[in-house]
Amino acid sequence: MTTNADAPGEFTPTRRTKVRRHPERARYDRQTVYEILDQAFVCHVAFVTDGMPFVVPTNYVRVGDTLYLHGSVGSRMMKTLASGASFSLCVTLLDGIVFAPTATGHSLNYRSVVVLGNAKVVDDADMKVDAMRAFVEYVARGRWPMVRAPNESDMARTMVLAVPLVEASAKVRTGFATDGQEEYREGTWTGVLPLKLTPGEPIRDPRGDRAVRAPDNIRHYSRPQ
Amino acid sequence: MTTNADAPGEFTPTRRTKVRRHPERARYDRQTVYEILDQAFVCHVAFVTDGMPFVVPTNYVRVGDTLYLHGSVGSRMMKTLASGASFSLCVTLLDGIVFAPTATGHSLNYRSVVVLGNAKVVDDADMKVDAMRAFVEYVARGRWPMVRAPNESDMARTMVLAVPLVEASAKVRTGFATDGQEEYREGTWTGVLPLKLTPGEPIRDPRGDRAVRAPDNIRHYSRPQ
Repeated sequence: MTTNADAPGEFTPTRRTKVRRHPERARYDRQTVYEILDQAFVCHVAFVTDGMPFVVPTNYVRVGDTLYLHGSVGSRMMKTLASGASFSLCVTLLDGIVFAPTATGHSLNYRSVVVLGNAKVVDDADMKVDAMRAFVEYVARGRWPMVRAPNESDMARTMVLAVPLVEASAKVRTGFATDGQEEYREGTWTGVLPLKLTPGEPIRDPRGDRAVRAPDNIRHYSRPQ
Repeated sequence: MTTNADAPGEFTPTRRTKVRRHPERARYDRQTVYEILDQAFVCHVAFVTDGMPFVVPTNYVRVGDTLYLHGSVGSRMMKTLASGASFSLCVTLLDGIVFAPTATGHSLNYRSVVVLGNAKVVDDADMKVDAMRAFVEYVARGRWPMVRAPNESDMARTMVLAVPLVEASAKVRTGFATDGQEEYREGTWTGVLPLKLTPGEPIRDPRGDRAVRAPDNIRHYSRPQ
């Protein structure tokens, strides 16, 4: 199990985070969990309102052992989470399609993280601005000093939630089909088609400064793999 | 509103599917909802077990006005959904990063669909095989006749669920920042960085037939945009 100074140790699998289907795909080390979290943009948050489970995509940023969410103070999801209600979130990176010799052997290669917990509203103005800075810098390092910082109105309209990373697990599928050798037959191609979220050419906002070129880290955008 | 023979009409927004945040991004026509569903591979399913909302990524296929899920008969998610419990699922396609002149103006371009409902177990053997064929053919057309069809053991281990597409809505964000003109300033690049899930070169399974080349639709893989 790889660990480093940034992410030492392991999550203790709980009854709720222990991976039961395909336990061989489970990862509980913070290093793996954090690497997955630090590569994606969108998580899916599940919460209960009026007895009904809802799922909403939203963005996030990890800072140390805390995950931050943000959104409108009027959002149903934000209000539910702010109330202290238990919720889950999931981050999934799709890495490829697995072409197997059998119909049911077909699969997807992926890396996913599930986080369970409760959120706390970040009320302290300095901490809230720090989280907002982290959101912007997560998208592109060096962006924060280039843009207008949140003003009072932005701050009032935006809720920031902190989710301590206490109960989490990752699930990783890699490689080819796991069908038995006897299933392979002549004439059928089997293998993996890799998939990757790829940036295109930056498109300039027609309202922006025409004299400015997109910074290098936007023109040659990359996420940690 | 665009409709065609495959997807006529609109979903009636309900209290649960009506888009409240950014209602200008809401789409209720089946055409848009189905186009989004037909492009992605993974949905995130939210369900409640022991009072706790869970979220799990899984694949799916749409056939007409029905969405099919499948999984192990032992899966907690499948068992919960099979019980008839209400659940939600969400499909999200990430299309780009929006670089705005203000910190809080930063956003993501995306297309998402939320489906609410209840699932029914597909018990009929022929209908179950039809759904499994749809799963395989969704991944790559022409694949089904190339692979070993589900046998009795595969059928017994796999549960297929049908979700009628009755209560659903889509949300679509496109374009640039929506900050006021007065926020734009000289020296800051603003615009959109497009993102796209891109296939790489197919990787051959070392256990497969070495004489067979990947079919054209896998080598030049594309999804409807």
